[in-house]
Amino acid sequence: MRTRIVSALSALRTRAPPVSRSRMVTTDAAAALPRREPLLFTPGPLTTSPTVKQAMLTDLGSRDGRMVETVREVRNRLLGMAHVSQDAGYECVIVQGSGTFAVESVISSVVAGPAEGGRLLVLSNGAYGERIKSIAERSGIDYHIERFGETEAVCPEAAARILSQEQGGSRPFTHVAVIHHETTAGVLNPIRDIGAAVREHAPGAAYIVDSMSAFGAYEVDMIEDCVDYMVSSANKNIEGVPGFAFAVCNRERLESEGRNARTISLDLLEQWRGLEGNGQFRFTPPTHALLAFRQALDEHELEGGPEGRLARYTRNCDVLTAGMASMGFSQYVDETHRGSIISTFLFPDDPKFDFGMFYEKLGDAGYVIYPGKLTAADCFRVGSIGRLYESDIRGMVAAARGILEDMGVSLPVRQ
Amino acid sequence: MRTRIVSALSALRTRAPPVSRSRMVTTDAAAALPRREPLLFTPGPLTTSPTVKQAMLTDLGSRDGRMVETVREVRNRLLGMAHVSQDAGYECVIVQGSGTFAVESVISSVVAGPAEGGRLLVLSNGAYGERIKSIAERSGIDYHIERFGETEAVCPEAAARILSQEQGGSRPFTHVAVIHHETTAGVLNPIRDIGAAVREHAPGAAYIVDSMSAFGAYEVDMIEDCVDYMVSSANKNIEGVPGFAFAVCNRERLESEGRNARTISLDLLEQWRGLEGNGQFRFTPPTHALLAFRQALDEHELEGGPEGRLARYTRNCDVLTAGMASMGFSQYVDETHRGSIISTFLFPDDPKFDFGMFYEKLGDAGYVIYPGKLTAADCFRVGSIGRLYESDIRGMVAAARGILEDMGVSLPVRQ
Repeated sequence: MRTRIVSALSALRTRAPPVSRSRMVTTDAAAALPRREPLLFTPGPLTTSPTVKQAMLTDLGSRDGRMVETVREVRNRLLGMAHVSQDAGYECVIVQGSGTFAVESVISSVVAGPAEGGRLLVLSNGAYGERIKSIAERSGIDYHIERFGETEAVCPEAAARILSQEQGGSRPFTHVAVIHHETTAGVLNPIRDIGAAVREHAPGAAYIVDSMSAFGAYEVDMIEDCVDYMVSSANKNIEGVPGFAFAVCNRERLESEGRNARTISLDLLEQWRGLEGNGQFRFTPPTHALLAFRQALDEHELEGGPEGRLARYTRNCDVLTAGMASMGFSQYVDETHRGSIISTFLFPDDPKFDFGMFYEKLGDAGYVIYPGKLTAADCFRVGSIGRLYESDIRGMVAAARGILEDMGVSLPVRQ
Repeated sequence: MRTRIVSALSALRTRAPPVSRSRMVTTDAAAALPRREPLLFTPGPLTTSPTVKQAMLTDLGSRDGRMVETVREVRNRLLGMAHVSQDAGYECVIVQGSGTFAVESVISSVVAGPAEGGRLLVLSNGAYGERIKSIAERSGIDYHIERFGETEAVCPEAAARILSQEQGGSRPFTHVAVIHHETTAGVLNPIRDIGAAVREHAPGAAYIVDSMSAFGAYEVDMIEDCVDYMVSSANKNIEGVPGFAFAVCNRERLESEGRNARTISLDLLEQWRGLEGNGQFRFTPPTHALLAFRQALDEHELEGGPEGRLARYTRNCDVLTAGMASMGFSQYVDETHRGSIISTFLFPDDPKFDFGMFYEKLGDAGYVIYPGKLTAADCFRVGSIGRLYESDIRGMVAAARGILEDMGVSLPVRQ
């Protein structure tokens, strides 16, 4: 058994030499040899394909015909992925910056202040729900946040109860927001059931879904899921590079309630009007990231769209789950609630486990996991998205086993 | 003469085949042959070097050590370029998005509302000054905009007069903002003299310089120029790719007055605290654009920093000016006010001149000029920044001459 692990690690070393060991002769020259770029087991920025990155080797003017055509194509294809079109009354608005910029663009543009009757219900089970709360606070929006445990899904019945109670008594909610896949612990929320509850109990309210790390793998059907605004990012499941995010919007809603933007840069309605007017961004777009994204959309389609992509991520996640379980790692989130995007593993109950060293040595071996800790429990996260395949997951698991053994962490006896 | 032009155009054609002409046999296969990517004669996004673009062929995790080190290095080198350092009390804050995002991040974070005594003087001679006014309006900031003609520079004496009058009577200005190089027509404003006027007549006011298209070629010395906040972008004179902009800030100012941000995404103080706390962005950074920018900084330094870069841009601009003048084009801005970044040419007084066709044919020949018209007069703009050299400018001028001749526009007789 030990032999198999050693040979697995040797195989890895030919791809990514580890830091110097006593028996290796490491010269400065050898240290300077190029090594494989590390693979990212993170929730984005993630590992993208070489062809996606190569699409950035061209400079296009922001007002140039080819750029305008790229933007048009990207917007239309994203609408299609959300099962709608311009003809059906939906619009795709691209926003420069990170995913949070697009979420804030939606919230701060479409939810009116309390004087104009705006009121937001935030259904939260983690850090990204809390972020929407912070955005609402900053914009002076009247809100109520309903919190669920970070290892549970948001409960549609609870949402229905709050919405029906509130509609009776105090001022009604004009907007309801939820995270589709809460990256904090890796919990998938039932956006369709929540959408149905919103439509039934608050028929006038708009439904905002932050589908940052779900869209492109998990389906969002704007109409079937009763979603009015859906936000996602270039560098999640569509596997582009970071630089922008986007919102798919119900046009009628956007036009009627979009005049609340607190800033010029994040003005969703004006950004849409700019894109619609002359096909251009109001302010300089990330041209290279857009070219990469168009290529990423081609590759996403070739893999079979969201269904094909989710199939690969699910295989990745299954291999990861089994591999980590074989070393005794248990997961923070119960199987019924978790998605296949990111997995949260509890620290092993062994004082010899040193997460800092584990993270660093895995990085040296060419595997970058996610050090950002958001959850209440002591745990770490490993992503299974991006241009990763089963073989990469197996390589990471083998490297992890070697590191734990070197650390002296006691592992379960393998069958 | 005609022969020389024809041979110049032929030389060009080997680089960038034009659209089919009657005497050429153009097959589908030939049309599919790769051609030289067009050169961008625009004020950004601009033509970057191959090595800058190639730096984007790596995916780095946003929390990875190499990314943190890249961000740290970029921030420090930008401080150095502005002739300050952290030790001297200055901070560089990188903001995702376009240049406007960073300008709005500064204005909306540091200028208080009227109830808290905030008041902004905008010294404007073009579209970017007007944009600061729009940002102030959107943020509910009390402001006064002093307008100068778009072909003149902002007058420091006028600024001094306004500041001294206002300080006597109504509530004093807490902030003064000006554009360093107003891209609307290509006018350079005397930021040092304006800074001196601010210090003398409104000693308590902060001085904000939008140096978007100047910094990196024209010097900004935060201390000598009395600048408290200087904003610029990745894809101007430092010749990176679009995706972020940055602000160099007087730390004491930022800490004391930075609590006014109207949004979470554009919160300058929190963005700085994030970068300073763990070296990371609060929200996903454009990792590839940052890697490109670090390479661009190396190439900027190799060329001799702002001085060396300005020398090349000045040569480019001189060759452009002479070439365009030889075809009878006159400039919108007088020589005393214009910079070497972008040149604004008046439409020739010949009904046969068709700008749309001129733009398109130049693009077909591999030269993209700037169609965006911001000025009051009928004119077009040609940039001389980015990875362009004299030979490229000569190529563009030769192509322009051929196109004008084909159009039947009467040209001056060449000596």
